Amino acid sequence: MQLLRWLWPLFLVIGGGSSAPQNVLLLLADDAGFESGAYLNKFCQTPNLDALAKRGLVFNNAFTSVSSCSPSRAQLLTGQASHSSGMYGLHNGEHNFNVLPETSSLSNLLRDQSGGRILSGIIGKKHVGAAANFRFDFEQTEEQHSINQIGRNITRMKEYAHQFLKQAKDEKKPFFLMVAFHDPHRCGHITPQFGEFCERWGSGEEGMGSIPDWRPIYYDWRNLEVPPWLPDTDVVRQELAAQYMTISRLDQGVGLMVRELEQAGLAEDTLVIYTSDNGPPFPGGRTNLYEHGIRSPLIVRSPKTEDRHHETTAAMVSLLDIYPTVLDALEIPKPNDTKIAGKSIFPVLKEEPAIKESDSVFGSHNLHEVTMSYPMRMVRNRRYKLIHNLNFWADFPIDQDFYTSPTFQQILNATITKQPLPWYRSLLQYYQRPEWELFDIKADPLERVNLAEKPKYSGTLKQLKQQLFDWQVATKDPWRCAPHAVLQEQGVFKEQPVCLTLGHEA
Amino acid sequence: MQLLRWLWPLFLVIGGGSSAPQNVLLLLADDAGFESGAYLNKFCQTPNLDALAKRGLVFNNAFTSVSSCSPSRAQLLTGQASHSSGMYGLHNGEHNFNVLPETSSLSNLLRDQSGGRILSGIIGKKHVGAAANFRFDFEQTEEQHSINQIGRNITRMKEYAHQFLKQAKDEKKPFFLMVAFHDPHRCGHITPQFGEFCERWGSGEEGMGSIPDWRPIYYDWRNLEVPPWLPDTDVVRQELAAQYMTISRLDQGVGLMVRELEQAGLAEDTLVIYTSDNGPPFPGGRTNLYEHGIRSPLIVRSPKTEDRHHETTAAMVSLLDIYPTVLDALEIPKPNDTKIAGKSIFPVLKEEPAIKESDSVFGSHNLHEVTMSYPMRMVRNRRYKLIHNLNFWADFPIDQDFYTSPTFQQILNATITKQPLPWYRSLLQYYQRPEWELFDIKADPLERVNLAEKPKYSGTLKQLKQQLFDWQVATKDPWRCAPHAVLQEQGVFKEQPVCLTLGHEA
Ligand SMILES: [Ca+2]
Ligand SMILES: [Ca+2]
Ligand SMILES: [Mg+2]
Ligand SMILES: [Mg+2]
Repeated sequence: MQLLRWLWPLFLVIGGGSSAPQNVLLLLADDAGFESGAYLNKFCQTPNLDALAKRGLVFNNAFTSVSSCSPSRAQLLTGQASHSSGMYGLHNGEHNFNVLPETSSLSNLLRDQSGGRILSGIIGKKHVGAAANFRFDFEQTEEQHSINQIGRNITRMKEYAHQFLKQAKDEKKPFFLMVAFHDPHRCGHITPQFGEFCERWGSGEEGMGSIPDWRPIYYDWRNLEVPPWLPDTDVVRQELAAQYMTISRLDQGVGLMVRELEQAGLAEDTLVIYTSDNGPPFPGGRTNLYEHGIRSPLIVRSPKTEDRHHETTAAMVSLLDIYPTVLDALEIPKPNDTKIAGKSIFPVLKEEPAIKESDSVFGSHNLHEVTMSYPMRMVRNRRYKLIHNLNFWADFPIDQDFYTSPTFQQILNATITKQPLPWYRSLLQYYQRPEWELFDIKADPLERVNLAEKPKYSGTLKQLKQQLFDWQVATKDPWRCAPHAVLQEQGVFKEQPVCLTLGHEA
Repeated sequence: MQLLRWLWPLFLVIGGGSSAPQNVLLLLADDAGFESGAYLNKFCQTPNLDALAKRGLVFNNAFTSVSSCSPSRAQLLTGQASHSSGMYGLHNGEHNFNVLPETSSLSNLLRDQSGGRILSGIIGKKHVGAAANFRFDFEQTEEQHSINQIGRNITRMKEYAHQFLKQAKDEKKPFFLMVAFHDPHRCGHITPQFGEFCERWGSGEEGMGSIPDWRPIYYDWRNLEVPPWLPDTDVVRQELAAQYMTISRLDQGVGLMVRELEQAGLAEDTLVIYTSDNGPPFPGGRTNLYEHGIRSPLIVRSPKTEDRHHETTAAMVSLLDIYPTVLDALEIPKPNDTKIAGKSIFPVLKEEPAIKESDSVFGSHNLHEVTMSYPMRMVRNRRYKLIHNLNFWADFPIDQDFYTSPTFQQILNATITKQPLPWYRSLLQYYQRPEWELFDIKADPLERVNLAEKPKYSGTLKQLKQQLFDWQVATKDPWRCAPHAVLQEQGVFKEQPVCLTLGHEA
């Protein structure tokens, strides 16, 4: 099989085809943003991510379509937006979201389409269901372990990766392996004794245990740069220092996985993808469709010598594109279903695409915790972003995890006691959002000025609204008529579905 | 076994115990209200329900805790409010709600606790899941048939009931059988060719096919009484005439089931319960916690001669009480879980309870269609009702089925064209609801005057708010801090969960 793989490229070049199937190693961070040298953060040290970037292609315009753990993971594994897959919110506990019963996934599709030839594995945080819809051949997740042991103990994760790769090699099977780190997710509201980001867990400090492969990096909170979207306070600085420390565990975990791949002799046959499910858990980040909620780190290392390495790309891509990319790598045809919304990034690995006006990505958020119903839809091109807040009437909801964070607590307390805060927006502004938000991202990267009501932008608004609605129709969005109309698509409307008004404006 | 049952009562009377286990036949209507002679409707003819009432106890104060199909059925089968069971909205299609994975149900519990001695069956509309949580020994539902064939074709339903009862008898097994009619549910938005309520389907009219056991009753819409909560228009009258015709199919189905029970010789051993999952699909009815959404017909025929027959009761009961009642009948202990919120109605079958100030029932609605997030909580005693609208900011949502109904269309069109309508509220009032609604039901049965802001009622308001919150805590409601606070129950709050403010009022 390995021999056969070596021969395939020659054969296919002769035949005019593309190339041999590649394995895929998907390295997924949990709530990470751009806290890495690869993305020009000068403080947070990430030698392993930086090394991956040097041998790969760094995406500067990658976006998740949804900023919430389970919906984002479902997006990666089903190729469908949150509203299409049925994973509208979190999978765990009382939230209880699952994909629609008939939904396929990478692991199931690869097995079915290859007749069991392709091996699938997941190590770390799974956070999607139902189980039948996401059956990996090899599973070591929070369903078998405590989440810290399987998502933050990089030594244990390395051992499982070793085991999986050995199996793939012994059985001569192409593979898809997802290693889903739990870092740098918060943990303060559940296990504050380990620090706000569990940054002390396994650090070797008194009573914290030790993870053999982790050399923690400590940061001085006074010596950091606070990004402009966060208040520059001591509290926020201390949060960032803790988060960066956790990033060191993630980064060294990435290094371990890459070395396992190399030591197994599989690096030359494997596409390595690093990304994060959603933005960091700070205000405007996770659970938002604002930039800091959806902009994603994405580093792709192609094993093909002719592909781009040590370059950056401005191509606009969505995490919805990962699914068809994995299928492309493993040479499995993409199912013919308009709910599968992405396209393979393989062409970008070969050459930088021309910049087009129409380049755009889409977003669809519904819930996070089950009590947090705040559906939003988004289209973003290189210049503008349009957000449709479907429950704009209500105050924006806050999740349990973020609520107890020192950063949010500081903002909340300053608001209640009417103290000044060095932040560019107020909490009440953050809560109260208009139905439509239109931003000129180039001129206004912090999304401060809503242009939706400005006559000058009425043409842009109209065009983006249409583009967004068309996407919702194509991807079968149940919310596509919300909030002022009701979708009818059965009976007399079966052939021609319509949105019928509720007369709210009457 | 049958012989043994005859002996048990004597033995138990001597021993001071209660009595022998009874089978349970649960007859469930879909969206029915009080369209029956048993409930003093002078126009709608229901000889079979009336006959059941004559041999049973008619409840005048029965309430569903939730006015939506799947959540209500889950309530009946799990004994839990919608927020406890996880069945927050509809089970089918893109709505995709299921109970929490660990949730038990009558069918599963009866089998497990009796070691397979008790037989469970369901015929008709199931509409709950996941399958593993609701496994009946005998299942003939929309999962095996078209919904009309298994929910409205009373001849077919009768045949399955015959089959089930024969099995129970042959195997000498006590049983729980749920016969869930689909009548008088609307069908106009899917199959308008059969009439708004599918009242012509199987009627023997041209092209409608025929259900052998059904003798349709036709109503003259001019000769009807429109209840005060609906506009008295020709359109509404025609809707009621169609609904009544469908009630005749339900009523004759009830008659067939009772006769099957008698012919199997099981009537003397079987508790028969008739009720409806939720109120009629008219404005203020289904999906509302207003009276017409939650007041339920409930007729219970006890096989015990010493129990009450041909009587009415003013006891306040909830459909959450059905679960412990079924367990009581089959002599299976009720699980020790405060999420199981009801209590057996057996004492009421023996004698009328004294009226107490504290008599009250609770309500919990979250969604219906997945796009319709409008959580509400309710407590109602004999005099007052308090509703907490958790997403009061938003306009009240309208479901697809109700939207296309002639009644709603008439109200909508009158609103848009600003025409007068003989209705006691406006559509905009119906959409826009305050966070708290307090009604004096005795003085104001149509719930027109909200007393929540009136100083005179501040004591009542405070007491009912506390009672409602206590119930939410006891039943582990994830929404119990919503909408102005966040629940914290982990980490430092594990022993003492708290609601922490979001500072909305700041
Ligand atoms: Ca995440
Ligand atoms: Ca119903
Ligand atoms: Mg926290
Ligand atoms: Mg209709």
